[in-house]
Amino acid sequence: MKMLYEGKAKQVFLTENPNEYIVHYKDDATAFNGEKKDQLAGKGQLNNAISSHIFTMLNEKGIKTHFIKQIDERDMLVKKVTILPLEVIIRNISAGSMAKRLDLKEGIAFETPIFEFCYKRDDLGDPLINDDHAIALGIVTREEVEFIKQETFKINEILKDFFMKANLKLVDFKIEYGKTEDGEIILADEISPDTCRLWDKDTDKKLDKDRFRRDLGSVIEGYQEVLERIK
Amino acid sequence: MKMLYEGKAKQVFLTENPNEYIVHYKDDATAFNGEKKDQLAGKGQLNNAISSHIFTMLNEKGIKTHFIKQIDERDMLVKKVTILPLEVIIRNISAGSMAKRLDLKEGIAFETPIFEFCYKRDDLGDPLINDDHAIALGIVTREEVEFIKQETFKINEILKDFFMKANLKLVDFKIEYGKTEDGEIILADEISPDTCRLWDKDTDKKLDKDRFRRDLGSVIEGYQEVLERIK
Ligand SMILES: Nc1ncnc2c1ncn2[C@@H]1O[C@H](COP(=O)(O)OP(=O)(O)O)[C@@H](O)[C@H]1O
Ligand SMILES: Nc1ncnc2c1ncn2[C@@H]1O[C@H](COP(=O)(O)OP(=O)(O)O)[C@@H](O)[C@H]1O
Ligand SMILES: [Mg+2]
Ligand SMILES: [Mg+2]
Repeated sequence: MKMLYEGKAKQVFLTENPNEYIVHYKDDATAFNGEKKDQLAGKGQLNNAISSHIFTMLNEKGIKTHFIKQIDERDMLVKKVTILPLEVIIRNISAGSMAKRLDLKEGIAFETPIFEFCYKRDDLGDPLINDDHAIALGIVTREEVEFIKQETFKINEILKDFFMKANLKLVDFKIEYGKTEDGEIILADEISPDTCRLWDKDTDKKLDKDRFRRDLGSVIEGYQEVLERIK
Repeated sequence: MKMLYEGKAKQVFLTENPNEYIVHYKDDATAFNGEKKDQLAGKGQLNNAISSHIFTMLNEKGIKTHFIKQIDERDMLVKKVTILPLEVIIRNISAGSMAKRLDLKEGIAFETPIFEFCYKRDDLGDPLINDDHAIALGIVTREEVEFIKQETFKINEILKDFFMKANLKLVDFKIEYGKTEDGEIILADEISPDTCRLWDKDTDKKLDKDRFRRDLGSVIEGYQEVLERIK
């Protein structure tokens, strides 16, 4: 199989079908724009299992995603898309880079979720942008921005409910959208503890990549617990 | 007279009228969040004259501003407002921090103007924020955001025309809004070569604070030329 792209956490492979790719989950963990790096044995399997489970659920709820099926422990089959160079973020509770940038305490629940775009450009540090920038950069039209916002708020409501049933607070998450050959924008990439902040509902214990970022230990155990709770 | 506040470029004084302040323009020039500093003899007078001229014109065009009248060479009388901690920015042509952050060449004219909010917090470096952040920070309501956007785009059209008659391209500008006692949002602060990028229409020669920021020399001569051209 020909590898098309190797990212920080996954590899993308061509398949015999020109409209389908295989996404392969690695054990590599990175943070702070690649400055911090490690290998976490078993992370690839866990993220593939969690992502596959969540995409299946979203497909069933009528959200259009790239997910076709889980192939094996580390691989999922997806629809080929052209990824929009946008990190699409929702924040339900203050945390991380945003809390720091705006001098907010962590853990404040916002009255309404906060929507953010970052420009997906590792060389620029994925800077925060607004709608006008995304349009001026030629990434999306104003209509596409509106669609992405609506869709992302819908996904947030579904995911909040979904995780709440597993006694997990969905603090924030980052998703990516891609365009299919016929111009449709669908949800792509992954949804996992690498891309969501998840806190235990009662204790606020972190069960996501912040365990790695902040050297809290038991990273894999956290991801494992997420998988067990959502299944 | 009691000084209420001393900023980087101006001082604000109380008057006998509790609803009016005096804004006094200093010769201090600062850039890069105060890292670069100098005194530019005559800048205070020039910015007061330019700002007073522009606010008079905006008042005549029906834009509500804090400007009452110019008092003397360095002072203007204004309506007291509570300043919203937002830097409201319009960009017609790429330049400065935005071009750098997004890896754009300088001098690209945008199809439609780009609107930006920065959170006016020197200690945080005035970070870029979006509408949701401004609302979550409790600075403005969603309705106020819509009003500020509309008003700012209107001001941009007026200022673009105004400067074009002086053979100047309005590249970008930063304005501040404040709230009067009865909750009305009006334009405040200053409009000058400290807060606008102005390029000669034919040669693109910079006639604004970038002459100071980038050590291009003849800063005061640039400001002087702006005043002469707009009068
Ligand atoms: N359906 C898809 N079609 C094409 N590319 C995809 C699809 N889903 C995800 N990708 C891209 O594959 C890459 C996955 O690898 P990852 O390690 O996450 O990369 P990165 O380090 O760039 O974030 C990402 O660039 C992601 O945008
Ligand atoms: N009408 C007004 N009422 C109250 N404050 C004002 C008014 N117009 C401007 N200001 C504030 O006065 C200060 C002017 O000084 P300046 O040197 O520009 O300060 P800064 O360094 O904070 O930008 C700014 O904080 C500005 O927001
Ligand atoms: Mg990625
Ligand atoms: Mg100022």
